Amino acid sequence: MAETIFNRLTIIGPGLIGGSIARAAREYGGIAETIVASTRSKKTLDRVAELGFADVCELDPAKAVEGADCVILCSPVGTYAALAERIAPALMKGAVLSDVGSTKQSVIRDVGPFVPAGVHFVPAHPVAGTEFSGPDSGFAALFQGRWCLLTPPAGTDEVAVQKLDALWRRTGALTARMDAAHHDRVLAIVSHLPHLIAFTICGTADDLADETRQEVLQFAASGFRDFTRIAASDPEMWRDIFLNNKEALLEMLARFSEDAQAMARAVRWGDTAYIEDKINRSRKIRKSLIELKQA
Amino acid sequence: MAETIFNRLTIIGPGLIGGSIARAAREYGGIAETIVASTRSKKTLDRVAELGFADVCELDPAKAVEGADCVILCSPVGTYAALAERIAPALMKGAVLSDVGSTKQSVIRDVGPFVPAGVHFVPAHPVAGTEFSGPDSGFAALFQGRWCLLTPPAGTDEVAVQKLDALWRRTGALTARMDAAHHDRVLAIVSHLPHLIAFTICGTADDLADETRQEVLQFAASGFRDFTRIAASDPEMWRDIFLNNKEALLEMLARFSEDAQAMARAVRWGDTAYIEDKINRSRKIRKSLIELKQA
Repeated sequence: MAETIFNRLTIIGPGLIGGSIARAAREYGGIAETIVASTRSKKTLDRVAELGFADVCELDPAKAVEGADCVILCSPVGTYAALAERIAPALMKGAVLSDVGSTKQSVIRDVGPFVPAGVHFVPAHPVAGTEFSGPDSGFAALFQGRWCLLTPPAGTDEVAVQKLDALWRRTGALTARMDAAHHDRVLAIVSHLPHLIAFTICGTADDLADETRQEVLQFAASGFRDFTRIAASDPEMWRDIFLNNKEALLEMLARFSEDAQAMARAVRWGDTAYIEDKINRSRKIRKSLIELKQA
Repeated sequence: MAETIFNRLTIIGPGLIGGSIARAAREYGGIAETIVASTRSKKTLDRVAELGFADVCELDPAKAVEGADCVILCSPVGTYAALAERIAPALMKGAVLSDVGSTKQSVIRDVGPFVPAGVHFVPAHPVAGTEFSGPDSGFAALFQGRWCLLTPPAGTDEVAVQKLDALWRRTGALTARMDAAHHDRVLAIVSHLPHLIAFTICGTADDLADETRQEVLQFAASGFRDFTRIAASDPEMWRDIFLNNKEALLEMLARFSEDAQAMARAVRWGDTAYIEDKINRSRKIRKSLIELKQA
């Protein structure tokens, strides 16, 4: 049997992302001999057992991490502090502890203090997903060609970082290292702000008078329809992301609001050059995305 | 040969929408015996002739409408006033004059005064499209299962309205009648505001420092990527829509901005209940859209 990167991999929170890591480990091989899944809900864990993408299903997260040389937190980032405190005494010396949270400074702040000496904490963020959630929603190919950003704090054990990097490349992801604060700013504009906007505009539409609301739904053409797709994502996850990347998110929202006001002013006063410039810049960005194969 | 709804159908502006009407007329039959295409650019008209979805290609719009019993304006709404003035003397008595513009009050304001006695002006708006534009982008099935909204002013000839309605149903569209002012408010929230937001956020991202911008493109996950798809639409068309539905668009943007500020405040002060409520309402809207088969 070929050697695997890890011996025993524990996924805490086997939903869209965690379930996809487990499936990729199973289908592509080379990642871990044994896959352990743990989640706080008995019902969800039973479903994971039915789906069969883990070798061991365990409700107690502290028991789930026993003997694991890699533990990945895949639950909403708001659960990390309590989880880290709970599992810390059970973590094996030499283990790699990682996560998949969309906010990296908060993860370092919440998990870092609980990491025992000899355990290597390597925060990571796979920039991939769909609007679906839960253990049924995952699939092995989710990370193919997508980026996974590793944000290890200065001084993190290099071998541990390289092992986690190898795990992600094995799932089909491209990997890159980034400073956690920089990560949070980039993600605020590419992901967190678009989600906040999508949730907001759905509410704005919902607040319109009853008759109009029905028509909003009926005539949702290209435009609103795409916003509702973004807005269908997991509520608990997004609440936690907003609260845990507050500063970068509020800064990007402030920049966006200034720009929206400038656009409103251009529309009010018929400043065609300004409007055309904005539209043309958007098309240029879309073109670049297509060239980078991210669209 | 089966009878067709119209004898000679002239499409002015055979791009995504106009080219799709012509293709649907060709492929599904029953709409018109002869299809005439006209566009101000010689190069585009040559391409239309190559694509072969029109029987007659004519640069001069006044010549193109001669003898047509149905004329549909499919160019950006900002071109309508000058076009209407130009073609008015050449319109055949009894002809149906229509359009596909996304703003209906402005079309009635711009075209109405030029419509000769005996010509029936029936404004319409097929709520369908893609992010592509130009004569190559059209396809016969574009309108299948999509709504086409007819906004005839009070007193419009009923037979003319029914003939246009029949044309749209023949393309596969569902049809409905709506007051022009009401149409403009509904479309402002379902389509015009989402586009304004998408163009704006692309600009906000583009304004970030060079290093971050490259990463914005590189890590554009679900979220930003969907916004750029919306933002790839035709610049001239969208400039004209914004300027011609100014009041409804600015009102919807003002409502949205209030809601975004309220969301920002909830994020700043950690008001989880408020954030969760907004996210859950968005999911409910998405679910309704799926039930209505508009997603």
